[in-house]
Amino acid sequence: MINVGVVGATGYAGQQLIWFLNNHSDVNIEFLTSHSYENISFSQVYPNYRGFVDNKCIKIQEAEERLCTINVLFIALPHGKSFDLARKALAKGIKVIDLGADFRLNSPEIYKEWYGLEHNAVDLLEDAVYGLVEIYRDKIKNSNLIANPGCYTTASILGLYPLVKENLIELDSIIIDAKSGVSGAGRDLKVTSLFGECNESIKAYGVTTHRHTPEIEQELSIAAGKDISLVFTPHLVPMNRGILSTCYGKLKNAVSEEELYDIYNKYYGKEQFIRIIKEIPETRNVKGSNLCDIGLRVDKRTNKVIVISAIDNLIKGAAGQAVQNMNVIFGLEENKGIDVLPMQI
Amino acid sequence: MINVGVVGATGYAGQQLIWFLNNHSDVNIEFLTSHSYENISFSQVYPNYRGFVDNKCIKIQEAEERLCTINVLFIALPHGKSFDLARKALAKGIKVIDLGADFRLNSPEIYKEWYGLEHNAVDLLEDAVYGLVEIYRDKIKNSNLIANPGCYTTASILGLYPLVKENLIELDSIIIDAKSGVSGAGRDLKVTSLFGECNESIKAYGVTTHRHTPEIEQELSIAAGKDISLVFTPHLVPMNRGILSTCYGKLKNAVSEEELYDIYNKYYGKEQFIRIIKEIPETRNVKGSNLCDIGLRVDKRTNKVIVISAIDNLIKGAAGQAVQNMNVIFGLEENKGIDVLPMQI
Amino acid sequence: MINVGVVGATGYAGQQLIWFLNNHSDVNIEFLTSHSYENISFSQVYPNYRGFVDNKCIKIQEAEERLCTINVLFIALPHGKSFDLARKALAKGIKVIDLGADFRLNSPEIYKEWYGLEHNAVDLLEDAVYGLVEIYRDKIKNSNLIANPGCYTTASILGLYPLVKENLIELDSIIIDAKSGVSGAGRDLKVTSLFGECNESIKAYGVTTHRHTPEIEQELSIAAGKDISLVFTPHLVPMNRGILSTCYGKLKNAVSEEELYDIYNKYYGKEQFIRIIKEIPETRNVKGSNLCDIGLRVDKRTNKVIVISAIDNLIKGAAGQAVQNMNVIFGLEENKGIDVLPMQI
Amino acid sequence: MINVGVVGATGYAGQQLIWFLNNHSDVNIEFLTSHSYENISFSQVYPNYRGFVDNKCIKIQEAEERLCTINVLFIALPHGKSFDLARKALAKGIKVIDLGADFRLNSPEIYKEWYGLEHNAVDLLEDAVYGLVEIYRDKIKNSNLIANPGCYTTASILGLYPLVKENLIELDSIIIDAKSGVSGAGRDLKVTSLFGECNESIKAYGVTTHRHTPEIEQELSIAAGKDISLVFTPHLVPMNRGILSTCYGKLKNAVSEEELYDIYNKYYGKEQFIRIIKEIPETRNVKGSNLCDIGLRVDKRTNKVIVISAIDNLIKGAAGQAVQNMNVIFGLEENKGIDVLPMQI
Repeated sequence: MINVGVVGATGYAGQQLIWFLNNHSDVNIEFLTSHSYENISFSQVYPNYRGFVDNKCIKIQEAEERLCTINVLFIALPHGKSFDLARKALAKGIKVIDLGADFRLNSPEIYKEWYGLEHNAVDLLEDAVYGLVEIYRDKIKNSNLIANPGCYTTASILGLYPLVKENLIELDSIIIDAKSGVSGAGRDLKVTSLFGECNESIKAYGVTTHRHTPEIEQELSIAAGKDISLVFTPHLVPMNRGILSTCYGKLKNAVSEEELYDIYNKYYGKEQFIRIIKEIPETRNVKGSNLCDIGLRVDKRTNKVIVISAIDNLIKGAAGQAVQNMNVIFGLEENKGIDVLPMQI
Repeated sequence: MINVGVVGATGYAGQQLIWFLNNHSDVNIEFLTSHSYENISFSQVYPNYRGFVDNKCIKIQEAEERLCTINVLFIALPHGKSFDLARKALAKGIKVIDLGADFRLNSPEIYKEWYGLEHNAVDLLEDAVYGLVEIYRDKIKNSNLIANPGCYTTASILGLYPLVKENLIELDSIIIDAKSGVSGAGRDLKVTSLFGECNESIKAYGVTTHRHTPEIEQELSIAAGKDISLVFTPHLVPMNRGILSTCYGKLKNAVSEEELYDIYNKYYGKEQFIRIIKEIPETRNVKGSNLCDIGLRVDKRTNKVIVISAIDNLIKGAAGQAVQNMNVIFGLEENKGIDVLPMQI
Repeated sequence: MINVGVVGATGYAGQQLIWFLNNHSDVNIEFLTSHSYENISFSQVYPNYRGFVDNKCIKIQEAEERLCTINVLFIALPHGKSFDLARKALAKGIKVIDLGADFRLNSPEIYKEWYGLEHNAVDLLEDAVYGLVEIYRDKIKNSNLIANPGCYTTASILGLYPLVKENLIELDSIIIDAKSGVSGAGRDLKVTSLFGECNESIKAYGVTTHRHTPEIEQELSIAAGKDISLVFTPHLVPMNRGILSTCYGKLKNAVSEEELYDIYNKYYGKEQFIRIIKEIPETRNVKGSNLCDIGLRVDKRTNKVIVISAIDNLIKGAAGQAVQNMNVIFGLEENKGIDVLPMQI
Repeated sequence: MINVGVVGATGYAGQQLIWFLNNHSDVNIEFLTSHSYENISFSQVYPNYRGFVDNKCIKIQEAEERLCTINVLFIALPHGKSFDLARKALAKGIKVIDLGADFRLNSPEIYKEWYGLEHNAVDLLEDAVYGLVEIYRDKIKNSNLIANPGCYTTASILGLYPLVKENLIELDSIIIDAKSGVSGAGRDLKVTSLFGECNESIKAYGVTTHRHTPEIEQELSIAAGKDISLVFTPHLVPMNRGILSTCYGKLKNAVSEEELYDIYNKYYGKEQFIRIIKEIPETRNVKGSNLCDIGLRVDKRTNKVIVISAIDNLIKGAAGQAVQNMNVIFGLEENKGIDVLPMQI
């Protein structure tokens, strides 16, 4: 049995994590914390869990005192809040899986530039592994600190990785137009997150400035072996869940759809959570699951390729992927506890 | 291993059934049929299943020839289509769980009155058991033919049963105002089911004429020991799933909320799939699960009681309950394969 | 030209009022106030108005100083906030149309009971007229202070009025099951109003305790000539706008649907904003308009009548009705500025 | 008074056209046709019009006989259906405004290539004017045959026109990622248009093959003075109305956002229906109106520009623009009948 602690359990990603941890037969949820709902039962905050996860939310200080009771600590806090806690847990030999942004960027300078904060755990960065299992599985196995990827980044990197790795597209041509359900905005009280302000409308936001940009650039740059700058434009869509990432690149040479599909199948054909599909992905086909669907088209008229990837932002884009990382670290079957099929409707 | 066949697998209820059967470790899906998608892969019709349930949809005639390969047959067809098939399966000693309406009403006359069809299997009615496990568990154990309850009826009967059984309300005072997500209208091509016609609107429909009325009346009449006529008004709500049933009754005598809660807990306290809650139920708290949440209020000013129950119409109102019935029949743990927690968001 | 001031213009009802006032050829918006957005342009708060209503939001104190510049003051504030302001405006001979609850209840005791506040303008109550034009048109013509009805109450009273007035139903049998879009919850920052908490779910709320209850009871009691207590249950539906009120009553004597339709047509046949329809109303058919659709059914089996009324909660349930009241007071065509057809889709 | 006929009045665009024609004080709707609802009252098909537009839908043959009674004919039919009818009307000296695709493409070869049909009215093409008022206002004034632009094309061309006309971007770099509400798919009975199939999901469709591609290319090529090929990717969003077009181009030279805004204001500053805004557009801010909101950002890191435009697909993208064209042709104020403000919520 793996004893886990979850810090930040009452955010949307945190509560989704609880769902999968509760669904995992090898896991015992030892404690969960909430800043907003301290001392309140988790199932009072999320009544769907009533009778199943009635743990009382503790505060983070108490969690720190109970670190010795767990094997792995999941952190689902806003950026800038994970530094100390991760350090303390690692010092006790506890595995840390951080769903936030604090350990995703290798460069503390870039972190500061995009997040406006000094990085307070630069020493830990070296050991942090970017938790995109399909790319870093081997490193993850032996890692103590996982930087669980962002939602947009998961969809976007998985979609573009083979193209970049195989040197098939002009590196300065990449444009990612991504669309997310409203749960991606979190559960904070903001006018822009009210039902009446999101429903029946679509908008772009964070145009040229969204913080997932450097994360995508970092990983694709590693794949390419050179620095990549790209355009990333996120949009808010009136639905609860799901990310669709529509990725564009200019092909260096003419290549057919069939050849590209072969390449994608070579990369991902054995992955349990990636489906390379001939059809154009829809988010509903992965909703509720840890799956990522990827389809592509070549536009012969313009010699561009369009790769479209779909994930559930709260699952493959957050909680499901976190559990997938845990499974890899602990040598379990990779789909344990997260082998739930999508519910389309 | 239980070998199952599913007839009508590509309707919304049918495909949800496939989800739970696939999730059930003791079940093997031997075949599935579809009238509309004969010879097409199930996962082409519902691409969320791609890579997991790729069975080809066969036609119903072929299913009949393969009856000997299965232990239980699930039928998810429109009313009037189950008579022959059920008879054939039963004749071969196969358990039948019918998700349609053909065996729910004890009286062939009432069936004809509400469905406009002659009942063609009157002889089977006697052995059919109404598959509301929380009420008929013992009879279900030994049954060969289960009439799986309708979605509205499940929510409504569970909500009102203790009140009626305990003789607490005036029997001629019952009003049920129910609200359903659009999946309840099925996947048939109708203008009224188009996105543009359902979204951003609520309407009542089938006022005084909905076919779930006699089904609710039958079961509550049995509970009361006398004939009940009631008002049932269904509404269509712009969401995919969920039924909320708001039930009203005039209290015979003054009784407190606390006393009523005690009674409800007495009836349902040990049920795995019913949660008696102090809060007012919301459909999102049962979405994706086989749960039914029930809450109630006494209106002292008018001496009326309001009981509100919430289910997922495709699960506790159809597919999940069908698997629950199967579990009871085969002596399995009642929650096997259907112990999935709701996803609220 | 009628010079108007709007207090509380940046709430959902307030901004809808601005829409219709801007659309009204006889109206000049002299000022508008906002507590939350003082000194900010109205069109920055609601960018749909950009280039059309760019007035700066002033604070309420400034509005008080500018009362002499207007002919009519619209107040769209939370309950308890209108007393002083109304008094000041009335003292200057300005007509007041209050969209809030402060002058709707004739009894200060009942106000205190349901709103938990002492009524601070009991002296004004006598002159306040309940602004349901279809019932009180003549009194409104000569009124200085209009209590614009609540949204649920408008739909419910219009639906039940002829039945009660004609003494057709048992007065202790009335049940109103109402459903509202989320804009009814206002623009306040509450977790329960977030997109992720409302979307894909329906719930009841305020069961037995909603403040529109005494308002409906008051008006129906006046119509009946005796005191009525009734059950009112509001529900929240995942859509922006619209109220559907499903009203139930036990018929005193057998009466046919045709007879009832005749009665409803007698009451409302000449009304510009009420449509008595044979079909069952849907909120989308009145969306964006000041219309109220009413349909009904007799359930012969139970001798009950079901009346269903649909309005746009922000228009006939708030802002449109307020302008309708203004038109009546100022002797304009009643539909001036509010003769906008619904957009169904 | 302008007497108009509308052919294809019961499609989503057609019915929206009826809305604005009914709202137009200089217009008399002489007849309207419907293939699907012949002899049925228009308000029975769209009950929101009940009491206001109760005209009986006639068949197209009858419309042809009544051409002499009208001054202008609006055609809202699927492509390939306008050729004959337009010819007949033009022959009688009637102005024709075609909301379909048959006269939008100057080249019959390109028409055939993308629509798979022989163009049967090549002779009329020469006189057809592309009805994008902001670009072709002068030509429209004297035109007899207007090809009303497509919905995606309106948003996309308006967004990119100044960039292309001013030679600011690499012509082979244009990518348009567009998102539409479901009404764009029309009212045809298709499984993919069902509520349950669209709600809570986003997908791309028609990738590299959508028929609005050549229309956008044609107009931008004219603006550029050379042939342009571009990538156009439409997406379906779970909302009724609205198109957001996110347009990407590589800047030829460094240029600031301020400079670009100046250019856009130079082009559109005097337009009544275009708002150049500093904020990022959202479709809800133009919903229900004939407005087009445009905002832009320069991504200095990649030297790309992102222009985002928002329209109501049924209005500026169809019916509103058609009336705008009529107003120009008949020398009326351009916003007559279509000066309705957006309702954001």
